[in-house]
Amino acid sequence: MSRDPAPHLADVLAEIQARMGEQIDRGQVADYIPELAATDPNQFGISLVLADGTQLSAGDCATPFSIQSISKVFGLAIALGRLGDQLWSRVRREPSGLAFNSILQLEYENGIPRNPFVNAGAIVTTDAALGNRQPRDYLAELLTFIRTAAGDEQIHINQAVARSEAKTGHRNLALAHFLKSQGNLVNAPDLVLGAYFHQCAIAMTVAQLARSGRFLSNLQRLISPDRVRRINALMLTCGHYDGSGEFAFRVGLPGKSGVGGGILAIAPGRASIAVWSPGLNAQGNSKLGTEALEMLARRTGWSIFG
Amino acid sequence: MSRDPAPHLADVLAEIQARMGEQIDRGQVADYIPELAATDPNQFGISLVLADGTQLSAGDCATPFSIQSISKVFGLAIALGRLGDQLWSRVRREPSGLAFNSILQLEYENGIPRNPFVNAGAIVTTDAALGNRQPRDYLAELLTFIRTAAGDEQIHINQAVARSEAKTGHRNLALAHFLKSQGNLVNAPDLVLGAYFHQCAIAMTVAQLARSGRFLSNLQRLISPDRVRRINALMLTCGHYDGSGEFAFRVGLPGKSGVGGGILAIAPGRASIAVWSPGLNAQGNSKLGTEALEMLARRTGWSIFG
Amino acid sequence: MSRDPAPHLADVLAEIQARMGEQIDRGQVADYIPELAATDPNQFGISLVLADGTQLSAGDCATPFSIQSISKVFGLAIALGRLGDQLWSRVRREPSGLAFNSILQLEYENGIPRNPFVNAGAIVTTDAALGNRQPRDYLAELLTFIRTAAGDEQIHINQAVARSEAKTGHRNLALAHFLKSQGNLVNAPDLVLGAYFHQCAIAMTVAQLARSGRFLSNLQRLISPDRVRRINALMLTCGHYDGSGEFAFRVGLPGKSGVGGGILAIAPGRASIAVWSPGLNAQGNSKLGTEALEMLARRTGWSIFG
Amino acid sequence: MSRDPAPHLADVLAEIQARMGEQIDRGQVADYIPELAATDPNQFGISLVLADGTQLSAGDCATPFSIQSISKVFGLAIALGRLGDQLWSRVRREPSGLAFNSILQLEYENGIPRNPFVNAGAIVTTDAALGNRQPRDYLAELLTFIRTAAGDEQIHINQAVARSEAKTGHRNLALAHFLKSQGNLVNAPDLVLGAYFHQCAIAMTVAQLARSGRFLSNLQRLISPDRVRRINALMLTCGHYDGSGEFAFRVGLPGKSGVGGGILAIAPGRASIAVWSPGLNAQGNSKLGTEALEMLARRTGWSIFG
Repeated sequence: MSRDPAPHLADVLAEIQARMGEQIDRGQVADYIPELAATDPNQFGISLVLADGTQLSAGDCATPFSIQSISKVFGLAIALGRLGDQLWSRVRREPSGLAFNSILQLEYENGIPRNPFVNAGAIVTTDAALGNRQPRDYLAELLTFIRTAAGDEQIHINQAVARSEAKTGHRNLALAHFLKSQGNLVNAPDLVLGAYFHQCAIAMTVAQLARSGRFLSNLQRLISPDRVRRINALMLTCGHYDGSGEFAFRVGLPGKSGVGGGILAIAPGRASIAVWSPGLNAQGNSKLGTEALEMLARRTGWSIFG
Repeated sequence: MSRDPAPHLADVLAEIQARMGEQIDRGQVADYIPELAATDPNQFGISLVLADGTQLSAGDCATPFSIQSISKVFGLAIALGRLGDQLWSRVRREPSGLAFNSILQLEYENGIPRNPFVNAGAIVTTDAALGNRQPRDYLAELLTFIRTAAGDEQIHINQAVARSEAKTGHRNLALAHFLKSQGNLVNAPDLVLGAYFHQCAIAMTVAQLARSGRFLSNLQRLISPDRVRRINALMLTCGHYDGSGEFAFRVGLPGKSGVGGGILAIAPGRASIAVWSPGLNAQGNSKLGTEALEMLARRTGWSIFG
Repeated sequence: MSRDPAPHLADVLAEIQARMGEQIDRGQVADYIPELAATDPNQFGISLVLADGTQLSAGDCATPFSIQSISKVFGLAIALGRLGDQLWSRVRREPSGLAFNSILQLEYENGIPRNPFVNAGAIVTTDAALGNRQPRDYLAELLTFIRTAAGDEQIHINQAVARSEAKTGHRNLALAHFLKSQGNLVNAPDLVLGAYFHQCAIAMTVAQLARSGRFLSNLQRLISPDRVRRINALMLTCGHYDGSGEFAFRVGLPGKSGVGGGILAIAPGRASIAVWSPGLNAQGNSKLGTEALEMLARRTGWSIFG
Repeated sequence: MSRDPAPHLADVLAEIQARMGEQIDRGQVADYIPELAATDPNQFGISLVLADGTQLSAGDCATPFSIQSISKVFGLAIALGRLGDQLWSRVRREPSGLAFNSILQLEYENGIPRNPFVNAGAIVTTDAALGNRQPRDYLAELLTFIRTAAGDEQIHINQAVARSEAKTGHRNLALAHFLKSQGNLVNAPDLVLGAYFHQCAIAMTVAQLARSGRFLSNLQRLISPDRVRRINALMLTCGHYDGSGEFAFRVGLPGKSGVGGGILAIAPGRASIAVWSPGLNAQGNSKLGTEALEMLARRTGWSIFG
């Protein structure tokens, strides 16, 4: 399986786009807030940035979508920058074996979430990144980080999405109050969730998202290589909730999905890849996005597993 | 982080050996059967085979030890060879979030084990590999496979260990009868466990174990590259029980541990690595073995995560 | 709500029998062994013995049926006779909140079953009652106890049922091996289950069953009043698996059900009552049997709750 | 075991008081809010009202204490009065097998609490009793109900306790938001918990509490006898959290405990009994209160189990 040069890759992306266009079963669009429910399920986009800086794209690459849980990767980078390894006394690094918003695990394990990518773990991570600042200061830092990573100032929070999340966020409020009762939340639940809901409401295009992941492929230096490796390891084992094992098995790349239908995937040293298609599979990950990445990994031989 | 040439690697192994020799806390030797309990915790060995066929070793490399759960990797290769993807209707590919011998997950998920490396999943895999054969025929195939992989006829089953496992194997019998009651076991529980206990009782030296893993590093062709990638993905996400996330985070290589203190780790395309030290950490994986692999990955830059 | 004299009671039983005869939905007959699966679901019988020794019956009262889990009450009486309160170090006295054959609770609570009426607890109780005797000796004592209680020598074990139970008993074998692995089984799992399966295979008519419960209504003295009270308390809180709360709520009498469709219910100081109808409800308790007891308790005012 | 006349009972109470005064291990006083933490653990009081209206008391019977979860019994009576059996579509009637504030069960069973006495079930019950009223209107009805039951206008809410509960109530907020996310809460979580925290903060003396339970012993008619029986059944199976089976086994009376150290127990047709001692046992129920009731039941023969 030879390494594919850029010209060939353009063909691969075109082929992927064509194949995804033919798919009848496109999964279920998330419908818990009106802003996501209204998304057209026929959209599909893929974009990647190579080690030489080339960016290739196909499909709906200029439409901003809600990155949702993909934002947890950037929030984790910031929290690690502020706390370093102290963060790991408040959140573990193990796959959960349960749904993304499970509260059961918390009770069983005394308020220490399994990893920073399940909702409870992301809430703790946001609380840690927040420190004693106001949410707006944390969000400003987060946006600056993402804009720097993407090399693009035109990345914003969709305020309507943030408001809707807050309105329907009782499950996350349950998690936050539970964490608070267990002593694993410094700030007030409302304050932390305010920051969390805004973070999830960041909107990006797949082209922007692909560029923003270059630092995780070591194509750009924003954080230490050691930390990059560890974030990638977490994405591989925990990045797709209870579908993480399946994603590793089929795609073989570290990746983080969001309920908005986006996935950021990393081919270390080779490429940063973003896909987007709003319909989700049973595990809550983009159905076509996963299939597109599986096809890409197969054609390029980029799997980290040989 | 440059790629290390073989001469340098010998120094790294020597350094690792020296460092491990100094460690005071060497973990707890498994004591559920007398044969394991009697093992001297001061032993440590490491061995690796490179892409060019060179093998480097340090420490106790000629002492056979019980490979225990590492045998699940070879059993899985054989089961996949016989059933192909049909195996995945009987066992999933997700990390478990629970202890290696948990029966709880089985009840919660109707008798479909989470992955082939938790005990329940390995029992199902053994049942599948067994088919309608006698245990001795399956074990003969398994030994042939391992001997071919290692290029060494001197690999045997330790019958005393197999007998002891059978005597104290009530937890595994519980799992097997539970699977049988759920309709996920074709053969009689006793028959499957007979095969399973003998498989776990295979004894190898670290030097042999390192050679036997070459097919997973694509240094030797025994099974298809696609299957290799998938077994590696499973080892990365599920190979160290409820310490799999931690191992991926710290070491960054696919690996499979056994309660005898051995670990087989794979650096795809680069090396097959085996370590052995009998003392276990809280998750039931070799304490010094894990630390040695973490050191090795750091010094060589072999992490698959960049 | 006046206390009903015996003549009136005959009318009540006749009315109950008539009502039950009209019921279209008669529940599902247990089908895990052929002997139970073959039972005619149209059968219904009810019998009760009053404080003055009068016995009233209606319906199919001369047909022997498999008492199954109702036997756990007699087994418990024998175990308490041999061990006294020491039994409670091996099994608790709390409702389980889970299905009757759940293994999950065992793992969560380190091998101490919740109560003597869930299967795991009954297996531990049988092991305790067995002591270092052979199963046949325990079974002889058990039959003697039941025959004495019923005042009837014609009560036997249905050997065909016992054999069928043993053949399909993988779930119970799983429980027994699990208990053994946790150190809460003295005898070998096979030996204990041999006794357990035979105990469950005892066959009685409702008339015999009603008489055999007199000692629990204090109409006959076989064990101390203090022990009677405690067995009744356990039947009330745990006698109908995860339908115990519902049974207490609707019927208001201590009772123990069996998967053969029988229920033994106790009105302390007033009556010992047995019903039988083979069809089961969703919780695995006799559907018509429960309804008949609810009707009886309402008409007689025998509820222990006022 | 003869039925004890009133004169004898005074001696029994005196003896119980004396015995409880000698106890060294008095359990642990709840310390999650300052108002409870400050309670003197040496206090003990017992009071009972008989069928003829006689009231007998011993010990600290004039000190008001926080009735906490005992208030759930009165809240349930009001909710049943408003909704009747429709309430049972939102909350079940089974013991939980888990701690009183467990959130795990909710996730496992889709937001339907196991019974009205675990916290989640009481929150749902309060929401149902609240309807579309303001909390103050519900609380006024509740106080009127309790004052009528006790025949005493001097029963009030301790506002300091209510405020403290609200301040530290993150666990209950987690439950309420979880229930809301599952669609099993009509009102806003804050509103329901406002009512709930005030309800728990009702203060009574044991003398008042004993009188307020007369309607459950059928010594006073406030609700239908059928409903009385059912509330008693729920208290018996679920009134002491995960110690309910133990309480039924040892005491043999329907009862409801509160974390303030009070217990209300019912001897149907005979007596309404209240005890209070602030120290709690491992299950969160009054340690001396339970022992006193066990002694009382033994001496009077009031157990409902014969």
